[in-house]
This record gives sequence, C-alpha cells and structure tokens, in this order.
Amino acid sequence: MIIIMRPDATEEQIGQVTDRLKRSGFGVHLSKGAERTVIGAIGDRSAIQLETLQMLPGVSEIVPIRKPYKLVSREFRKEDTVVELPGGVRIGAGQKLAIMAGPCSVEGEKEFLEAAAAVKKAGANVLRGGAFKPRTSPYAFQGLGEQGLKFMAEARRQTGLPFVTEVMDTRDVELVARYADMLQVGARNMANFNLLKEVGRAKKPILLKRGPGSTVQEWLMSAEYILSEGNKQVVLCERGIRTFETITRNTVDINAVPVVKKLTHLPVIVDPSHGTGEWDLVPAIARAAVAAGADGLMIEVHPRPDEAKSDGAQSLKPETFAGLMAELKLVAKAVGRPL
Amino acid sequence: MIIIMRPDATEEQIGQVTDRLKRSGFGVHLSKGAERTVIGAIGDRSAIQLETLQMLPGVSEIVPIRKPYKLVSREFRKEDTVVELPGGVRIGAGQKLAIMAGPCSVEGEKEFLEAAAAVKKAGANVLRGGAFKPRTSPYAFQGLGEQGLKFMAEARRQTGLPFVTEVMDTRDVELVARYADMLQVGARNMANFNLLKEVGRAKKPILLKRGPGSTVQEWLMSAEYILSEGNKQVVLCERGIRTFETITRNTVDINAVPVVKKLTHLPVIVDPSHGTGEWDLVPAIARAAVAAGADGLMIEVHPRPDEAKSDGAQSLKPETFAGLMAELKLVAKAVGRPL
Amino acid sequence: MIIIMRPDATEEQIGQVTDRLKRSGFGVHLSKGAERTVIGAIGDRSAIQLETLQMLPGVSEIVPIRKPYKLVSREFRKEDTVVELPGGVRIGAGQKLAIMAGPCSVEGEKEFLEAAAAVKKAGANVLRGGAFKPRTSPYAFQGLGEQGLKFMAEARRQTGLPFVTEVMDTRDVELVARYADMLQVGARNMANFNLLKEVGRAKKPILLKRGPGSTVQEWLMSAEYILSEGNKQVVLCERGIRTFETITRNTVDINAVPVVKKLTHLPVIVDPSHGTGEWDLVPAIARAAVAAGADGLMIEVHPRPDEAKSDGAQSLKPETFAGLMAELKLVAKAVGRPL
Amino acid sequence: MIIIMRPDATEEQIGQVTDRLKRSGFGVHLSKGAERTVIGAIGDRSAIQLETLQMLPGVSEIVPIRKPYKLVSREFRKEDTVVELPGGVRIGAGQKLAIMAGPCSVEGEKEFLEAAAAVKKAGANVLRGGAFKPRTSPYAFQGLGEQGLKFMAEARRQTGLPFVTEVMDTRDVELVARYADMLQVGARNMANFNLLKEVGRAKKPILLKRGPGSTVQEWLMSAEYILSEGNKQVVLCERGIRTFETITRNTVDINAVPVVKKLTHLPVIVDPSHGTGEWDLVPAIARAAVAAGADGLMIEVHPRPDEAKSDGAQSLKPETFAGLMAELKLVAKAVGRPL
Repeated sequence: MIIIMRPDATEEQIGQVTDRLKRSGFGVHLSKGAERTVIGAIGDRSAIQLETLQMLPGVSEIVPIRKPYKLVSREFRKEDTVVELPGGVRIGAGQKLAIMAGPCSVEGEKEFLEAAAAVKKAGANVLRGGAFKPRTSPYAFQGLGEQGLKFMAEARRQTGLPFVTEVMDTRDVELVARYADMLQVGARNMANFNLLKEVGRAKKPILLKRGPGSTVQEWLMSAEYILSEGNKQVVLCERGIRTFETITRNTVDINAVPVVKKLTHLPVIVDPSHGTGEWDLVPAIARAAVAAGADGLMIEVHPRPDEAKSDGAQSLKPETFAGLMAELKLVAKAVGRPL
Repeated sequence: MIIIMRPDATEEQIGQVTDRLKRSGFGVHLSKGAERTVIGAIGDRSAIQLETLQMLPGVSEIVPIRKPYKLVSREFRKEDTVVELPGGVRIGAGQKLAIMAGPCSVEGEKEFLEAAAAVKKAGANVLRGGAFKPRTSPYAFQGLGEQGLKFMAEARRQTGLPFVTEVMDTRDVELVARYADMLQVGARNMANFNLLKEVGRAKKPILLKRGPGSTVQEWLMSAEYILSEGNKQVVLCERGIRTFETITRNTVDINAVPVVKKLTHLPVIVDPSHGTGEWDLVPAIARAAVAAGADGLMIEVHPRPDEAKSDGAQSLKPETFAGLMAELKLVAKAVGRPL
Repeated sequence: MIIIMRPDATEEQIGQVTDRLKRSGFGVHLSKGAERTVIGAIGDRSAIQLETLQMLPGVSEIVPIRKPYKLVSREFRKEDTVVELPGGVRIGAGQKLAIMAGPCSVEGEKEFLEAAAAVKKAGANVLRGGAFKPRTSPYAFQGLGEQGLKFMAEARRQTGLPFVTEVMDTRDVELVARYADMLQVGARNMANFNLLKEVGRAKKPILLKRGPGSTVQEWLMSAEYILSEGNKQVVLCERGIRTFETITRNTVDINAVPVVKKLTHLPVIVDPSHGTGEWDLVPAIARAAVAAGADGLMIEVHPRPDEAKSDGAQSLKPETFAGLMAELKLVAKAVGRPL
Repeated sequence: MIIIMRPDATEEQIGQVTDRLKRSGFGVHLSKGAERTVIGAIGDRSAIQLETLQMLPGVSEIVPIRKPYKLVSREFRKEDTVVELPGGVRIGAGQKLAIMAGPCSVEGEKEFLEAAAAVKKAGANVLRGGAFKPRTSPYAFQGLGEQGLKFMAEARRQTGLPFVTEVMDTRDVELVARYADMLQVGARNMANFNLLKEVGRAKKPILLKRGPGSTVQEWLMSAEYILSEGNKQVVLCERGIRTFETITRNTVDINAVPVVKKLTHLPVIVDPSHGTGEWDLVPAIARAAVAAGADGLMIEVHPRPDEAKSDGAQSLKPETFAGLMAELKLVAKAVGRPL
C-alpha cells in the first residue's frame, strides 16, 4: 500500500509511520518529493488496519494497491468457473445460458407444478420458487417453508429440472440444502456474514444476489466469504440497485455484467424481474443482459400474475415468457452463446 | 386505497377491478371523471396484493392511503415511548439524552475496562462495544464472541453503566441477551427479518440501526417486525445512508430525525461515528443531531484509536469525547433537553 | 388530481379544500370512507400549485393523476417521431440505427479529419465532436470554440456525414446552429431552462442528454421545454446516472430505454462511453443498448486515445470501434433493426 | 501523482510510462515492489491528462495526490474569508449568522413588501426572493423578471436589508447585478460553467448553491471557476442532495458543513427549506445547521404559504419564522455564534 504524507509532515512523523509499518512486518520504501513524502509499504495488508494508519499524525491518505478479495479474483484463477447443477446444467464459461424461471413464491402444489411445466416447455433449464420469503411487512405472506420445498422437489421430479430457492436463516441452511439443487442468498442478506459462512459450508452451489445498496466490490467480498469456507460453486446475480430513480423498482446496473466478468472468474446472471419491477420492461432488459455477456437470467413467471401472492406485477405470463425465449435465442446467437 | 384507471379503460375492465375488490371484501366507490375513472377501495389492505391489482387490464396506478406500518405509528400511539435500561437510563420523551459510548469492538479486557472508565468519567450513560462484528472481509478481525460479552459485563459491574452490543445471528440471540442490557440489530441486518422476529421475542430493549440503503419507511417496517412479536422497547438509530457522495463514509440523513419523530412514537438516536467515518467531523454532527431533536447519540471512543482493530479512524480519544460532552451540554440546554 | 384528507380532518377543513378547488375552476367529487375522505378534483392542474394545496389544514396527501408533460407523451402522439439529419439519417421509429462517433473534443483539424474518416469507414453515420467543452476544472482544456466548428464542417464536407456538437451558452446557440446539423444539450445543462428554450427556437434537431442526477420524468420535462417552443426534432440520450457505485464513472440506466419508449414518442439513444467511463466496457454496453431497443449510440472514438485532451480513457481506437460495429450488426439484426 | 502498474507489467511498459511523464516535464521516481512497480510523478498535474495515462499498457491505477482546486482551498488561504454585503452584513469567520429570508418567488410588490417587513421584524438580515425562477415545467410561473428585481429593490429601500436573487442566464448577469446585492447561482446551474465565469466577472458577492447531484469536490470546483475569474466573494450553500430517500424532497447533507469548513476558507450556509421540502421539518434542520457550524441559513418565508406560486409547502409563516429565530438564538449562543 502507499501512504501519502501531508505537505507539512515532520521528519519525526514520517519516522513514526515507517516504524509502525516495520513493526507490522512491512517492507518500507520512502519517496521524498518536492512537496511531500510518499511511503510505499510492501507486505501482507491484513497485518494492519488501514484505517488506523490514517490516524497517525502527518498522514494525509492511504492508497491500498491490492484488491481486498483474493479467491474470487481473476488474478487468482484465470479460467472461468463453471457452476454445475444436476440435470446437466453448466453455468458460465460460454456454456449454454442458464434460464431460471418460475413464480416468486410457491403458493400451492398444483400452482407450482403448472408453472414448472409451463416454464420447462418454454425452454427454461432451472426452476425457481420461494419457500422462505423475505417480506418488508410482517403482515405479508411469508412463504410455505418446508412444505414449499417439497412442492418444488415434486416439480423437479416431474420436469427433470433442478431448482434454486432462497435460504434466509443460518438455522435453515441444512434443511433447504436437503431439498434444493442451488441455494439462493437474497439481496437483503448479501451482507449477512453468518449466513454466507454457513452456505459456504453447504455442499450445494450458491446463487448470490447483489444487495440493492451494495457496491460491486462488497458483492465480491461476500462471494469471498463463501469461497473462503471451501464452496467454490458460486453464481453472482445482478438484480438492480437502489438509486434516486423511482420510475422503476430498481435500476439494473448493466455495467456490472462486464465489470464482474473482468474482475472475477465467477459466472454472473441478471434478474430483470426485480431489476425493473414491471413485467412489460422485462423482455428488453433480459435481451440487454444477454447482449452484455451475462451467463443467464432469473425471470419470474406466474400462470396468473394477477393472483400471485407476491411480485405479481413483475411476473410474466407463460406465453409472454415463451415469446421472450424466442427473442433471446436470436440475441444469444448474435453474441455467440448457445441457448 | 385508490385505483386510477387508464384513460382508455373500458367499462368491462372497470367492472373486473371492482369485482375483484368486492371479492376480497372491499367496499368500492366509483368516481368517473371526464378523462378517467378512479376507484376508491375501502377495507383491509392486507386482504389483497396491491401489486397484483396493478396487473388487471385498464389499471394505471394504485395509490395506497394507509401507511403499511401500524404499531410503530403515531396514529396507533400518541405518546412518546420511553425505553428503559438498567441503571435508571430512560430514552425518549424528552428524557435525559442517552449517550452510548465505547470502542467499536471489544479487543481485550484491560482495554475495554479502560475505555469504559474513561467514557463514564466523561459523562456517557450507556457502554457500547462489539463482541460479534460484521466485517466486509472474511479475513478481518471478527470479534471475541462470548469472551467479549464477559468483558463488557465486567465493565458494567465496575462502572454501573448498562451496555448495548450487536447480535448478528438468530442462533446467538439467547446468548447475547443473557449478558447484554440492550441488543443492537446492525445496519447490515436491518432487513434480516428472521433476526428481527427473534429479537422481537427477546426480553431486552432493541437498538435498531437503519440500513445504509434503506428508506425511513423500510426502517419503520423493520421496527414493526419487532413490535409485532411483542417487544415494544425499540430505539431507532440513524447512522448515515449511502449516497453518491464519497468524501465521507456515509451521509447522515439529519432530516430523518424530525421525520421519524413525526411518524412514530419510538425514540431515535444518531451515530455520528459511522455517519461520517472521520473522528474530526464527529463533534459537529453530534451537536447537529441533538439540535435536531435526537434522543441520544452513539459515539465510538477508543483510548488509542490508532491501535484499534476496527474503525479507528472514526473513534474519538477520551479527552476529545470529554470536550464534546461539554459542548453537547450547552446545545442540549438550548433545545430544552437535560444531559 | 386526488386529495387524500387526514383521518382527523374536520368537515370545515374538507369544505375549505373543496372551496379552494372550485375557485380554481376544478370539478370536485367527494368520497367519504370509513376512515377518511378523499376528494377527486377534475380540471386543469396548471391552474393551481399542487404543493400549496398541501398546506391546507387537514390535507394528508395529493396524488396527481395526469403526467406533468404533454407534447412529449405517447398519449399526445401515438406514432414514433422520426428525427431527420442531412445525409439521409433518420432516427427513431425502427429506422436504421444512428451511430454517432468521434472524439470527445476537437483538438485540431488534422486529428479530427483523421478521426472522421476512420469512423465513417467503420460505419458511423453521424460525426460527433466538442468545440465548447464543459470541464469540471477551469484550468482544463475548454475547447477550440468556433475554430472547432469549422474543422467539423470541413470533416462533414469530406465524409458527407452530418455532425452533432454541444452548445453550452444561450449566447452561442445561433453560432453553433450556423455550423452544426444537430445541437447537443449536455448532461450538465439538462435543467438549464433558458438554454432549453433557446434551442427550442433553433431550426436544428436537438440531442438532449439526461442529467446524471435527473429522473426520467425531469428529463422528459426538459424535452417538453424544447417542444413547447416549437422544435419537435428531439432525440433523448441516456448517458449514465450518478449512483453510489463508483467502480464505473456512471451507472447506465438501461431500464430507461424501454421506459422512455413507453412514455414518449421521441427516439432514444445511449452513450456507453460516458455511461461507463472505460473503453473496455463500451462494447458490452453498446450491444446491451441495441438489444434493449435503443435507436442509436453515441460513442467516443479517438485515433490515439492516450493523447486525447479529454476522456481518453473511455475512447475506443478506430480498429476496436470497427470490431464493435461488426458485433452490433449481429445484435441489431437479432432485434430486427437495420444497421 | 502516483502510477500503480499491473503485476504483469513489462519493463518496456514501465519505460513507456516514465518516458511519457518525463516528456511532460514530470520528475519520476520508481519504486519496485515484490509484486508490482509504483511510479511517483512530481510536477504540474495540469501538464497532462490523468485519464490518458490510464490508457498506457501496463498501467493499473492513477492516484492524484494534490486536490484539483487551489484558490478555494485552506492550503491556499488559511484564514476564513468574510463575504460582505451592504448594510453591514458580514458572512463567515465567526461573524453574526446570516439569515436570508423571504418568499421563493416575488409575486407582486405588495406581497413582497409585506414579506420583507415581516422577516426583518423577526430578525432576518438579508432578503431573498426570485425574479427569474428555474421551473421544471415550461407551463409553471417563470417569475416576474426585471419587474421582480424592482420590487426587491423597493423592499431593500424600505427595510434597509440587502437582497440576494438568482440569475439563470449569462445574458442576465449584468441586469441582475445592477439591482441585487448578491447573485445566486442556483442548484441546477452549479455546473453551468459559462454562467460561473460570467458571475466571476461581476462585482457582486455570489451565493453558490450545491447541485443536488453534485459532490462536495465538484461544488468546490465550481467555486474555483468563480474565484479564478477574480471574484473572491463567494458563499457556499448546502441545499440538500438527491438520494434514494423520497420521504423528504432532498436529503440535507449535514456532513458537508464541517467538511467544507475543513477544506476551504469560504463561508457556508444551509437552506433547510429546499433541503426538506416541508415547512414543519425546517426548524429542526435549521437548528442542526447552526449547531454543525454553518455561517447562516436561507429560509423561505411567505405571509400566506397556501397561496404561494411556488414552493408553498416548504415556506414558513412569518410567526413560525419568528419562533424559529428565538430558538436559533439559543443554539447560536450554545456554539458561540452571535445572532
């Protein structure tokens, strides 16, 4: 890292900083400019709190050089990671696009089986559905819990498609992992570090949604938590960030797709349903995500959106979804991806 | 609620909407304007998903009338709630300001006892310290866990001051509640609904920090989760939101203080340490918070900030804190609050 | 509009509001619910200040029904507007994509002619270049002024391509309109209402960039300013908004493309150069914009980006731009657009 | 500045960068770490485009050391600037607080004289009022223009108080400067660089509002534009920034007050009327601003807010304003400021 001293820093202050660095095991390199002194510190950054160096008298600014994440970085692993789900679904590295589709929440067995059959028919290769639902209001439908997991398992049996579902509580990881093919860490829990550690110990692939108020770097740090526990099967999911713009529910950060591809080896998909909040915007953003290089999509589909217990306004009807799939095939082909 | 139809909505579409509302138990009131029809729906909003109404053909917009929270609202309870901690600390309703001070994380017994003695001497009436620490990096110091709780209990014994500390995992609520006088739900866990339910069942007062990407309304909904489980002793804590401005760590939403006072009966305090991220900005923002009507402050104080294992850059030295307390006494007096 | 009264509003207060509305020429429609009264007001909203109604005792909330813009709305004009530039360039309504390319600022005649020839060869159909440059620093290169306009005119002569360039000052509109084929109102001036009025009186098509801190609705209101002066040839340009994410220079609001298409009849293009700030992210976002339905792109291309006087880091080299054009052809075809 | 090379940068690439720096007149200092090379460049930053260095192969990151502004910085001038208005008003440097009050827009002579008399009586020392109004809608009241200036001049004659008013167009600077005692550059025009240059040449003090989407650094750069034209009488005004929070019109960035005080020698005031958008939040935020160290306030006061042609909802009635002045006296005294 680099420590930039203030123009008026004294020799004594410079000495204090270099002493402190040396005590923490850093190699130190002084560079005295006409206006100020700059100190290069070579060593293991985790040996010291950057921010406390900032407290030393005479210090103006600290510039970290290395990125704070390691296992998720391109530098650590050059080749794209491929995340594998049962049923031959392989996500990332130019593989066939992963299309995860289904209703926001599992509301009943019949309804879910109907939705599952419809999305399979339209070409989805992964089912999605919520059994444990994070709801803003304590008075809203909170999901069917284990019963919902059972319905999804039955849908898997009938369709042959693996399913992904959210886990919200460290105490439920084992239960959900017993049923699901992929565990989702939801946007609101992206910085629930205990949950990240727990899913890092699960033997299932993880879908890590980006927090709506979280930077790309924080998102990658959350992935680092999972990888550092030994689970390397992580797919990132951009689902819109919170900005001043309220005309859509969230703002899809489309820039994040190529940025994440550059910084990390993990696959990245986009959720245009939460990203827009309006079903009639979903197709345009789904196409844009594929064109930008995403490895897949997560899309809410409901047989009767106007009766959905959650997120109906952003759910596609099966026939609209089927039409979108046809469009996506063309866009995928244009960017050289199978679908 | 009010349903605004599109200018081109047909009679049939209007009929569909009113039918749907009536089936869900709403009273319906039609108002046909020159340009469009507006439908008033009177009844229990939780009986229907607002967003799914949106899906019905011909609907342009839905306007909820009632606020989504109830127990936390001023309408529900006119008088200010007073939250009580051991040691005679009463927070809210014009009571003496609550000054919660101490280091970010508990690093050792000696260090914490020293800090506790110092903040008590300067006039703090609640101790703060972290045993379980939410850290962005899996490689950073994660806190001492139960050992840290024991050190804080010992500091309480020596100073007579109650203490507040964060709980991050549903599995730890019982443990932390055994030691602490007040449980903190941290900013990153504001929308961890399972944790909110769990602390809602604890028999201890709760300090609920606002999520840096969360609106005031979402923050109040999170408080509603706690109250709806039976725990009415909740203090809200504004600690800065995330904006485009990066010159400070967060942007203190000072507007939130009077807004929250207007909407709810719960006490609200401000954390200028996280809110600014820089110790030399803390005094100005602490004074501003008191002048704006906050019921207290949460301030990081560390005997040797440059050796702190976390958040050193935003921690005050005990002598700076003592100076600030003297300033705060004058401001508190100016706005008619004892300190 | 709808006025929602407070639950405790008195009959007298309700009377005051209806009187006030009637005096301003509104038709009034009362709807008394169990909990509160809702007042529908039918008439010309510009006859009254919405916000001042808010001041009347007993009023809880005002809900505008009609959108504040008119001439730019789909309701006003159903068919897509086509904006025409010399050289047979037609923008919007499914026409061939408009690709506006060239260096950020015009730095010299030779350099600009070289760039113009290169972008033409690669398939651009509009030249772009800055003669008047809005620079954050008063000490940075401010553009060549009229000299720059002359260089662009010469490039037009040589290539046959029309050119677009920014005008920043009401006093310069006439001058710039004398040379340019299309006047750009830059992002920083999106709410410079006097400039909007002035270009609304110019007889040239306008490219209206979205302000980085402006909502879609405000952007459309700025377009309304131009149309209301009589100039209907306006192209909207999304160029990234300012959010908490700093890993890219701006966050491209890709949602805005289908949103704007839905709300208005005006063409919309995207500027991935400013939207990302990094040349190696430009191709992915350019492809995404076309897939989302944009009517064109504005892309910075510089023969030697590392010598550019502004925005070098986000400029493509001509050969990279040519490669991108080949990719865009495929994506355009996939979404049924000629390029 | 410091150039951090990529870990895989070659000797040749490092050579290219140092050559380029030397050609631009920089002194160069190489520091080869185990992992990467860091290059210190000493010299005049304006001699080179930072961003174009970024383009050179092998470069990872550029870290500027010096701030981009000069004349406005504390380093340039240690003592606080005092801005002087006629009538003995001196703003900054611990002087008596400047209280600028009056209606949003000047609506008529009688109304303005009434408002002026009221705010004077309550203790304001500067009048404010708008003759040229930036309105989102082209159909809204745009101000009385020169007529409004005349009414304000008459109010000054009657009350003895100087007045501040906005100028929006480069062509109007001379006209407005002929009447007004202080020219306001509004939030929407903070980055209208031509206007900044023009008011920089005016012989009147300037009130520079912060743009709602602008960082503190950009705000100071805009002030630098004014100072660099020779006008050193600039007062900064924080008026709320745009964030994801919509419960208030803007979010007052209270942190900006001590930040600006630290970075610059210019006075800073706060506008709680625009900052909140609701009159009943204004007193709390006004008190907070003074407690945080602001040099003054700008407050909208209207004799009959419910009849105001703009911003009525955020205007105080004269009697509320008078009550607030009494509160502010106490807070000002608590922080050692005369009022």
